Amino acid sequence: MHVVVNAATSADGKLSSRRREQIAISGPEDFERVDALRADCDAVMVGVGTVFADDPHLTLDDPDRVADRENGGEPPHPARVVADSRARTPPDARVLDDAATTYLLVGEAAPRERVGALKDAGARVVVAGAERTDLEGALAELESRDIERLMVEGGGELIFSLLEAGLVDELSVFVGPKVIGGREAPTLADGEGFVEGFPELSLEGVERLDEGVLLRWRV
Amino acid sequence: MHVVVNAATSADGKLSSRRREQIAISGPEDFERVDALRADCDAVMVGVGTVFADDPHLTLDDPDRVADRENGGEPPHPARVVADSRARTPPDARVLDDAATTYLLVGEAAPRERVGALKDAGARVVVAGAERTDLEGALAELESRDIERLMVEGGGELIFSLLEAGLVDELSVFVGPKVIGGREAPTLADGEGFVEGFPELSLEGVERLDEGVLLRWRV
Ligand SMILES: NC(=O)c1ccc[n+]([C@@H]2O[C@H](COP(=O)([O-])OP(=O)(O)OC[C@H]3O[C@@H](n4cnc5c(N)ncnc54)[C@H](OP(=O)(O)O)[C@@H]3O)[C@@H](O)[C@H]2O)c1
Ligand SMILES: NC(=O)c1ccc[n+]([C@@H]2O[C@H](COP(=O)([O-])OP(=O)(O)OC[C@H]3O[C@@H](n4cnc5c(N)ncnc54)[C@H](OP(=O)(O)O)[C@@H]3O)[C@@H](O)[C@H]2O)c1
Repeated sequence: MHVVVNAATSADGKLSSRRREQIAISGPEDFERVDALRADCDAVMVGVGTVFADDPHLTLDDPDRVADRENGGEPPHPARVVADSRARTPPDARVLDDAATTYLLVGEAAPRERVGALKDAGARVVVAGAERTDLEGALAELESRDIERLMVEGGGELIFSLLEAGLVDELSVFVGPKVIGGREAPTLADGEGFVEGFPELSLEGVERLDEGVLLRWRV
Repeated sequence: MHVVVNAATSADGKLSSRRREQIAISGPEDFERVDALRADCDAVMVGVGTVFADDPHLTLDDPDRVADRENGGEPPHPARVVADSRARTPPDARVLDDAATTYLLVGEAAPRERVGALKDAGARVVVAGAERTDLEGALAELESRDIERLMVEGGGELIFSLLEAGLVDELSVFVGPKVIGGREAPTLADGEGFVEGFPELSLEGVERLDEGVLLRWRV
């Protein structure tokens, strides 16, 4: 499986403010790029923190891209994937509507009733790991369901865990013309953090876009 | 006064790891650039957190630059400035040696004995603000002492306060080919963080350097 992480950060590396409110960091050129990248992937993944904060839909915006996928024999939108160990995704989350297939990656300890309610809401549930979702196992299971190209759209907790598990191939970061600040604001890679063995990147591309710059790194 | 903030961050916006240990983020080309920038400024500033973490010297590396400054009638090295409300800088900190003039910016509540000990160690003390150093007042005082170009080398707490006070003109960020991660690792702009009225930047330059990229923003 090929895993691309894509995110927009402020010039100081934040995904949003300490209030975890969504902040316009990029612009129309970057939206276009992200929509094209989504269209090119089999699935788009976020952590449940992002579902709580932003309630994203994670589908394609451009009807031409939807048509292209359908003409190619693909589902209209990529599948959606939520890392959600304890099945906390609200059953009325937008990510669970019937626009696309949605996988929830839960741990074995996820409460049975909540898992049931989410299945009733249309989710396909993948169980991997005892407490917290075991991302390596869960991604292997997704691969067995023909998900070959996975795009990860955040947030910082999920991105850190994927990097820690060595599961990320590429990192695309749009750096926007704003400072958000805040020692408690979410960043591109949160979690515990590394103290040694920092993942090394190689810079594959630098491109001005909107009022910022897109940095493409290979992990 | 013209204030330039200069820092090196990982691809995820961190200044160092959660252990606050110094991490090699940039390389020889960026060191050269930073030395040239220092040589071009009247003073180089850090917060006391950086003194505790890194015990930096903040002088010029290149003897030719020292000679050039002396030939131009300037002191061999720029002055050093530490924002240190409570005069916590250790009297044996490298920043207090006699290689250059050092200003400590303290608040009125800074303990008298510590201020005395630091004066004895050679520091020039600027008092501004009741508890925490009032950066606007302190910078005005430095300006009256002929400091026209000030370079700020971190850390994230000081940089946030300067941005919040509207005192920063330029932001130069070298983004290096590493992920550090960690929700508690210091970032380019920490502090409370903004929740609205985010400072807007304009991207003045994008340049590949070492294995990363230098982003120059105007605030
Ligand atoms: N600017 C952008 O591009 C962008 C993109 C996305 C999000 N955001 C922002 O990012 C913030 C949310 O980020 P976040 O870091 O709080 O949340 P997140 O990464 O979206 O989700 C984190 C949650 O995922 C669950 N999870 C399941 N398995 C995991 C694993 N193995 N490792 C880590 N987490 C796992 C955890 O909850 P359980 O333990 O309950 O499973 C964890 O709390 C919001 O403010 C949002 O606006 C910005
Ligand atoms: N990669 C880089 O380019 C780079 C550069 C520098 C530092 N660093 C790293 O950054 C970390 C240190 O950063 P930091 O954020 O902890 O410390 P910092 O910004 O260097 O210093 C913060 C301290 O400055 C003092 N201060 C005085 N007046 C202030 C004001 N008005 N606003 C804010 N602070 C004021 C405060 O202590 P009082 O209240 O006692 O005065 C505060 O705790 C270290 O890990 C270091 O390695 C990295």
